[in-house]
Amino acid sequence: MSELWYTEKQTENLGITLKISDVLHTEESEFQKIDVVETNQFGTLLVLDGMVMTTDKDEFVYHEMISHIAMNTHPNPKKVLVVGGGDGGAIREIVKYPSVEKAILAEIDGRVIEVSKQYLPDIAAGLSDPRVDVQVIDGIKHVHEHKNEYDIIIVDSTEPIGPAEGLFAKEFYKSIYEALKEDGIMVAQTESPFINNDLISRVFKDINTIFPITRLYLANIPTYPSGLWSFTIGSKQYDPLAVLESQMKETNTKYYTPAIHKSVFALPKFVADLLK
Amino acid sequence: MSELWYTEKQTENLGITLKISDVLHTEESEFQKIDVVETNQFGTLLVLDGMVMTTDKDEFVYHEMISHIAMNTHPNPKKVLVVGGGDGGAIREIVKYPSVEKAILAEIDGRVIEVSKQYLPDIAAGLSDPRVDVQVIDGIKHVHEHKNEYDIIIVDSTEPIGPAEGLFAKEFYKSIYEALKEDGIMVAQTESPFINNDLISRVFKDINTIFPITRLYLANIPTYPSGLWSFTIGSKQYDPLAVLESQMKETNTKYYTPAIHKSVFALPKFVADLLK
Repeated sequence: MSELWYTEKQTENLGITLKISDVLHTEESEFQKIDVVETNQFGTLLVLDGMVMTTDKDEFVYHEMISHIAMNTHPNPKKVLVVGGGDGGAIREIVKYPSVEKAILAEIDGRVIEVSKQYLPDIAAGLSDPRVDVQVIDGIKHVHEHKNEYDIIIVDSTEPIGPAEGLFAKEFYKSIYEALKEDGIMVAQTESPFINNDLISRVFKDINTIFPITRLYLANIPTYPSGLWSFTIGSKQYDPLAVLESQMKETNTKYYTPAIHKSVFALPKFVADLLK
Repeated sequence: MSELWYTEKQTENLGITLKISDVLHTEESEFQKIDVVETNQFGTLLVLDGMVMTTDKDEFVYHEMISHIAMNTHPNPKKVLVVGGGDGGAIREIVKYPSVEKAILAEIDGRVIEVSKQYLPDIAAGLSDPRVDVQVIDGIKHVHEHKNEYDIIIVDSTEPIGPAEGLFAKEFYKSIYEALKEDGIMVAQTESPFINNDLISRVFKDINTIFPITRLYLANIPTYPSGLWSFTIGSKQYDPLAVLESQMKETNTKYYTPAIHKSVFALPKFVADLLK
């Protein structure tokens, strides 16, 4: 009996392999290759340019952790921008907050949005919220054209190669600073401390030269390289470590808790050393 | 050009694959298949019965985290037992504590010890400490035959199949309770919360019926299934959460820190739910 496996070379020397029961979709969009496969271990899997983006079974970790730390740090987030994140998972978490009046999704590849709606409806569910404005646009351009407008900007990018390369550039973080209100917060996914240590060091230093408060935190995502993932926050005024549990507004979650909000900033020594 | 890869099916549906430059050793011992390969990503890799045991590059996480939480929780650990752990990594961490007068390694398979000494000398280094007593014996039998003797017992086992099956049994934890002094602490590796959730629930409940204080904590180990690993503590008197930073004796480490000592007990909600 033959078996079908999805295998991703996460680095030149490391891979993950997942048994699949079905290939649901495959296409070449204007920007990237988009595949959707059904895995036995993690359910439906969205693949962009041969890299795991998200799966039904572990997506909650990434989407909660890229959203709730910043959203619960800001006392009253009304206008939120997600750059990338076409699957809709970050938006789904953001619209859990009643304070949100407008959430803009700036995704460059409209096909990612459509494919996610079709094959990952639980992740894309938030996109139909009336407060959400889905825009198929270049997020870098959008950020550059808006000043002093957003409470929170989430950079939910793919790997720093291909269409997302510019989302890891210092110039982009400067634009984000200007697009944020005077008490705004940005958060970006910043790869694995076991693998992308140079990138983590560089991005942290870049954001730290722009924002008065810079923090790195970690979460466990089994389908991403090494299973350990980092997020970097730049904040103009509010320190995520200073938030009281009583101020945390939304914890209808499967990973995030008020205790997790604090504990994820306690870094293993080798990770803390990357930020020196 | 051909390439050599080590691929482990971590579950029926999930695998890790590592490019290797060399197969250093392979044998069938009395108890299991032992392989040592040189990987590009993680350095030298020890494989038992086809499962990653430890690698040069990420072993520090597992060995520090199975040792220092308990060792720093106990105010004066003098006599320590490691069941399994033939590579010597846990012993290496234990002998960092000047209070330790005797550390016994009870490893059932002497070949694991010899192979580790030869191919993983940095991990096995602690085995030559004069306070260490290496015994090639059945750890279950050893624990059963000793009463009220140990300050700390570390269960550094392989997966709960094959030679290590008995190391996950409630009867064994009862024997450990009796082998510990009146203020003793046990810690066991208890697999991944993303994959082995039934085992984690069962072991936590078993230990919780025997010990007055039971705690689960987590660490990030890239080469283990899902990258997220759990450890379960049973303690007769000292609560790892009650230790003050000023009481922590040893932090010459690459992962463990006093802040990590606390933060690793903050569990993601889906993990906390496993313990209810």
